[in-house]
Amino acid sequence: MVDIATRVYNHTWKIDPIVRSVLDTDFYKLLMAQTIFRRHRDVQVTFGIHNRTTRIRLADIIDAGELREQLDHVRSLSLTRGESTWLRGNTFYGKRQMFSPEFMDWLETFRFPEYLLEKEDGQYVLTFHGPWIETTMWEIPALAILNELRSRGVLKGMAKFELQVLYARAMTRVWEKIQRLKQLPDLSISDFGTRRRHGFLWQDWCVQAMIEGLGSSFLGTSNCLIAMRREVEAVGTNAHELPMVYAALTDSDEELAKAPYHVLADWQQDYEGNLRIILPDTYGTTNFLQNAPDWVASWTGIRIDSKDPVEGGEEAIAWWNQRGQNPKDKLAIFSDGLDVEVIERIHRHFRGRMRIGYGWGTLLTNDFRGLAPEQALDPISIVCKVISANGRPTVKLSDNPTKAMGPKDEIERYKRIFHVGAQTAKPVLV
Amino acid sequence: MVDIATRVYNHTWKIDPIVRSVLDTDFYKLLMAQTIFRRHRDVQVTFGIHNRTTRIRLADIIDAGELREQLDHVRSLSLTRGESTWLRGNTFYGKRQMFSPEFMDWLETFRFPEYLLEKEDGQYVLTFHGPWIETTMWEIPALAILNELRSRGVLKGMAKFELQVLYARAMTRVWEKIQRLKQLPDLSISDFGTRRRHGFLWQDWCVQAMIEGLGSSFLGTSNCLIAMRREVEAVGTNAHELPMVYAALTDSDEELAKAPYHVLADWQQDYEGNLRIILPDTYGTTNFLQNAPDWVASWTGIRIDSKDPVEGGEEAIAWWNQRGQNPKDKLAIFSDGLDVEVIERIHRHFRGRMRIGYGWGTLLTNDFRGLAPEQALDPISIVCKVISANGRPTVKLSDNPTKAMGPKDEIERYKRIFHVGAQTAKPVLV
Repeated sequence: MVDIATRVYNHTWKIDPIVRSVLDTDFYKLLMAQTIFRRHRDVQVTFGIHNRTTRIRLADIIDAGELREQLDHVRSLSLTRGESTWLRGNTFYGKRQMFSPEFMDWLETFRFPEYLLEKEDGQYVLTFHGPWIETTMWEIPALAILNELRSRGVLKGMAKFELQVLYARAMTRVWEKIQRLKQLPDLSISDFGTRRRHGFLWQDWCVQAMIEGLGSSFLGTSNCLIAMRREVEAVGTNAHELPMVYAALTDSDEELAKAPYHVLADWQQDYEGNLRIILPDTYGTTNFLQNAPDWVASWTGIRIDSKDPVEGGEEAIAWWNQRGQNPKDKLAIFSDGLDVEVIERIHRHFRGRMRIGYGWGTLLTNDFRGLAPEQALDPISIVCKVISANGRPTVKLSDNPTKAMGPKDEIERYKRIFHVGAQTAKPVLV
Repeated sequence: MVDIATRVYNHTWKIDPIVRSVLDTDFYKLLMAQTIFRRHRDVQVTFGIHNRTTRIRLADIIDAGELREQLDHVRSLSLTRGESTWLRGNTFYGKRQMFSPEFMDWLETFRFPEYLLEKEDGQYVLTFHGPWIETTMWEIPALAILNELRSRGVLKGMAKFELQVLYARAMTRVWEKIQRLKQLPDLSISDFGTRRRHGFLWQDWCVQAMIEGLGSSFLGTSNCLIAMRREVEAVGTNAHELPMVYAALTDSDEELAKAPYHVLADWQQDYEGNLRIILPDTYGTTNFLQNAPDWVASWTGIRIDSKDPVEGGEEAIAWWNQRGQNPKDKLAIFSDGLDVEVIERIHRHFRGRMRIGYGWGTLLTNDFRGLAPEQALDPISIVCKVISANGRPTVKLSDNPTKAMGPKDEIERYKRIFHVGAQTAKPVLV
């Protein structure tokens, strides 16, 4: 029996929406939004999409009309009553009322702001201008839409069983990864794969497979909607946009040098415990740690995001030791281009020396490498980054110069102020 | 939206029936049934199940109560109006009205006869006594039920995603086989996998994958129900039970020696063209061909079912040449334990020298080898064979003595009469 109503309802959609909920975003966006809401509600910023995998000409694959329809659909969304209830009533990181009533009131009335879409050299130039608190919300849905529209563009030409076997292969691959990870003692791993996922349903599948396959070793997902639906933890930390905007807003070299710590000072007023995770690499990890005030060393942990993981982890351990902290009490979160081999390598190297957490992103939720001809479904390295704040350009140096961003002269100025010397460029897969 | 009615309906089934239609059987059973209906309606035979893979103790895996429920469900089936219409209105092998109105009238009133179920040494002793025309119909559903109940017994303990990945792996495997077969020029292949399939839905999936993956190289399926639903050809030839019963009914050695040709003489009155396929191995191929009347050589083709395929094919070509027939006009159907490697080997060897058809069975519809621990889902070699006719034991010699059946003294007598000398035993995988 076909449920006629369901069939008719499904066919009345003009489009098949990719992002269907305000909560289909990373948890850290809400954490950061609350901090922005409290402190920087009037800052104007611009976010922009940047596809680092230039060989994939997104503007040739994705129809501009379809892209607009998807983005416009996001603009029609608002937080539902059930979603609001979940945010207000749930515990996050063991804490009730993570989000203040004032912030929740704002979030309930939030609508996604305008976007600007242009094409340039086979790529979409997609930008968001406006209040930081609004534009920041675009990062994840914009990326998820571009990635899923690209997948759809490739899948469109495939026949029914070809498609089914494509997913059969991808499922087998994820499952085999999970079976390997299962062998790792004391594993703690989360899904960080929203932004560059193959598609929403696929991310949801991956999370469920992790739930079944890893049991208590699976900590949760960064995706709020999936966390809500699958009743697992919503997890996340914070991102480079905070130090980047804080830095851009400074008026002197001296202030600039202090900006990264200013971020942490604000953050620790808002969040505690496992949410106090340092992201040290925005302007170079080494300098950041050397010049950090002691209270930074007392934070719960650190995120290693652009350095070689073993090198970055060793640096953190040495720093904690030097600051009189016991690394065994500390948590290192690895989240850069993770896949099973890397995770195994990190685990072998650090297990027992500190607490370890893995934020597994693109190669969990979008590992279709080699499953379509000409690598057409291989993940791409696409980001949505803050470009300017109150009219001033933002800068990111990173530990990997391939990930650096900003105008050349500003990059040089930042390098000077943060004492960043020669860096080794590493290719960025995802 | 859940279709409540569908959900409620599904849950009112006491069991999940494996065989849900009289047509969920092999096409050759209907062809043979019509010949039996015309000529041997009063012959009483006994069919019996035999599991050659003794390491798999079916009676330990399959609950006797569940087995009875499934068999009883088959006894509740009758040909539906739409099924009858399809048989009456369809063309089979290019011919309309393959089945006579008299036979169709009989089939419409047909109900499956009683069965006898006992256990012995970890195996089920499942036998069917009664008129040949009725008991013959049990072969395929009985085998399909035993195979699927065994699969279900193994799958019962598996979790949701473990199951999904199991099928993902099996799908990928079938698809990769299809992609390899696709490379073979002038391929003609059919599904012969009903009896030992993993399950009905799985066979249906495999057929659909062949339709999409192989296009016109896929000839059709032996399964009538799937042929009807998927609108492809229903295909089949004839089986050892005909010469076995004909032989058992003879009253002298002289008559016995002629029995295999007597079968063909009757058959060619009933069927023409591509249905005139010799099955020569019941009492040894070599002797059968040497002593065959010339009109047998004029038949369309031959089925190579228990000899090494290259040896059997060469023997057929030599025989046709010797009888003044052009092998290039002839059709050889290979159907014994086929898988991609064997098909490729046969194709390399014979392509261009005669027409070739493949009847791909168990390793199409039940290749779950290695996908469950302890080979628990590997296919088994189980058959349902005629054991006696009008109270006399039946005998099969085959070209492979591993497949021989019958009482020892009768086997010796048949060997003498059919001049079967030393034979080489080959292991039987499926």
